[in-house]
Amino acid sequence: MLGNFSYHNPTKLYFGDESLGFLKDELDKYGKNVLLVYGGGSIQKNGIYDEVISILRDCGKNVAEVPGVMPNPTVEKLYEGLRIAREHQTDFILAVGGGSVCDYAKAVSVSIHCDDDPWQKYYVRFEEPTCEIVPVGCVLTMAGTGSEMNAGSVITNHDAKLKIGHVFGDNVMPKFSILNPKYTMTLPKYQMIAGIYDIMNHICEQYFSGEDDNTSDYISEGLMRSLIHASRIAVQDPQNYEARSNIMWTATWALNTLVSRGKSTDWMVHMLGQAVGAYTDATHGMTLAAVSLPYYRYIMPYGLQKFARFAAEVWGISAADKTTEELAEAGLSAMEAWMQELGLVMKTSELGVTEDMIEGIADATLILDGGYRVLNRDEIVQILKASM
Amino acid sequence: MLGNFSYHNPTKLYFGDESLGFLKDELDKYGKNVLLVYGGGSIQKNGIYDEVISILRDCGKNVAEVPGVMPNPTVEKLYEGLRIAREHQTDFILAVGGGSVCDYAKAVSVSIHCDDDPWQKYYVRFEEPTCEIVPVGCVLTMAGTGSEMNAGSVITNHDAKLKIGHVFGDNVMPKFSILNPKYTMTLPKYQMIAGIYDIMNHICEQYFSGEDDNTSDYISEGLMRSLIHASRIAVQDPQNYEARSNIMWTATWALNTLVSRGKSTDWMVHMLGQAVGAYTDATHGMTLAAVSLPYYRYIMPYGLQKFARFAAEVWGISAADKTTEELAEAGLSAMEAWMQELGLVMKTSELGVTEDMIEGIADATLILDGGYRVLNRDEIVQILKASM
Repeated sequence: MLGNFSYHNPTKLYFGDESLGFLKDELDKYGKNVLLVYGGGSIQKNGIYDEVISILRDCGKNVAEVPGVMPNPTVEKLYEGLRIAREHQTDFILAVGGGSVCDYAKAVSVSIHCDDDPWQKYYVRFEEPTCEIVPVGCVLTMAGTGSEMNAGSVITNHDAKLKIGHVFGDNVMPKFSILNPKYTMTLPKYQMIAGIYDIMNHICEQYFSGEDDNTSDYISEGLMRSLIHASRIAVQDPQNYEARSNIMWTATWALNTLVSRGKSTDWMVHMLGQAVGAYTDATHGMTLAAVSLPYYRYIMPYGLQKFARFAAEVWGISAADKTTEELAEAGLSAMEAWMQELGLVMKTSELGVTEDMIEGIADATLILDGGYRVLNRDEIVQILKASM
Repeated sequence: MLGNFSYHNPTKLYFGDESLGFLKDELDKYGKNVLLVYGGGSIQKNGIYDEVISILRDCGKNVAEVPGVMPNPTVEKLYEGLRIAREHQTDFILAVGGGSVCDYAKAVSVSIHCDDDPWQKYYVRFEEPTCEIVPVGCVLTMAGTGSEMNAGSVITNHDAKLKIGHVFGDNVMPKFSILNPKYTMTLPKYQMIAGIYDIMNHICEQYFSGEDDNTSDYISEGLMRSLIHASRIAVQDPQNYEARSNIMWTATWALNTLVSRGKSTDWMVHMLGQAVGAYTDATHGMTLAAVSLPYYRYIMPYGLQKFARFAAEVWGISAADKTTEELAEAGLSAMEAWMQELGLVMKTSELGVTEDMIEGIADATLILDGGYRVLNRDEIVQILKASM
């Protein structure tokens, strides 16, 4: 059932290899003090930094920078950004990077004018902002997280061994995002395939839940089929602009709330993966890949019809001469084979997880109740062991 | 190829049987002088009018009414609404009805402060508004047109025998729309199935165009499959709330620009159908149904691969032992059979078209160039004759 819900995604998206041309018109709508946040330095190497700085200059902006936003942005990095932003009197935040940088920008945006400790307020107590929110825009350089068109923000606290996501309200969504597929094409293959799996799993987290057969499920199936098709081309030919475009566009629509309308949503693969990430600092998409099949094989009996439908509709597997269980299993095997085709990490041991970490990772795994089965701690430990 | 494009849909959607509960909070954001526009009187019979008036009163609004907005809103009705709105000093327009009423509200919104004749400026010269635009909100009572989340507005000029649509900018999209599937369930079956076909054809107008295989095509296939599934249930059981919900949600996503990203788009079935509508005043969805198969069968050879894909992916037809042509034909036959299942009008003669009208209807048919084949006037006449 679709049930009762609202949908509001005011982010303006500019897509394509000419999209940066719209940055000036957008920036002109916002304040003079722009906080430029970005990652490790790849944007200096590929020229995007220079182009953006030049546009900021043309707009007459007073720019302060927060470089070095790491792939799993930390609470310390958040505090550093807030010190810079408060001194600078930032009135607009421009994120240039991947999902981590966009997430980070949103965390800064709700915290600049916040009197409380933002980690405690937003990521421990899950309260909503009551202070002024500084607007955010994104120039996206990596496809995967959907952060460019959603209100999510994930921050890692290494001391507490916690990696926590908060989904804010639509006033925290970026005002605009610039999506140039060419920017995603300068990244290493490891990041490309990790992003691809993040997209697939976002859709699965919403699809494999609740009572089925609503429009969201059908849209999800379309997005998954598009992704499988485009990813197979991209893995052979990462410079194929059309394939990379479709991956980038699918990433946005996989996690902007559209396909969760009417779905209870699962998110346990992300809970398990984020906990692994808190312990290993591994790439997000790889942590998901490493835990997915043990998780899905475990819950499959509790959502059997949907896994059978997944096999038929997403992987094109014929139901002929198969029991429902066999069809469902064939679907998960097809996904596994595709994951291996992509070259994903399929074992948490390869990400640095050791047996002695498992109890701690299980403690760090939030238990959610939207999926086909609510796990208990023993089952989480079992799945983590099977993921090694 | 997705190419270069922007996407911006700021409309806030409230969906479900509790959605009217959000009308007050929304109205409180806008001005005091609310122009209430609606159709023929069904909203008085089903109680929606009373509920809305009561909410407007609670908000302390000064309400003027434009009742009687007909299914193909006319230019005379537009002028009448403008006289009322200007005297009233309308600062917000609330449309309560189906797509026609929403379209009409948008036409009023760009015309109240417009010095030019709006028919000439917007529907003949296709210029964009330069005047102040009055905000619009919708309470939707019929599913089909997508008008609740787009910037389109169709107005009919019976004297000129023209029915013309203008797609405005995103500042003309409704600020919010309230989508309660229950409201759609009080309508006669004729309107329900006409709306269902309008949805299907919206998707086809975008899908059957351009170079293929992008994400938009996969999303379209998902929407079409959802619609076919839900419509079969709804035709047997119009009171099935889940089926009617999915139809209503699919209608919004079929025509809010998402699935036209990267597509040249066709729209000739709508051009032919609107021309038939200008002559007969027939229900929009039925005019489309009556011309569709002759049109698609005519252009099929020029987009053969896509029609074959349509057969396989949307209708589940096996390609085994079929040539590409046979598969493509089987897909159109499957759509035809579904249209007959629904009970659609399949001949323009049943809508009042007579042989002597055909030349005039052909003159009224705008020729567009986004589809697989650009028609000439002779071909239009041929298709209109085949539609009789």
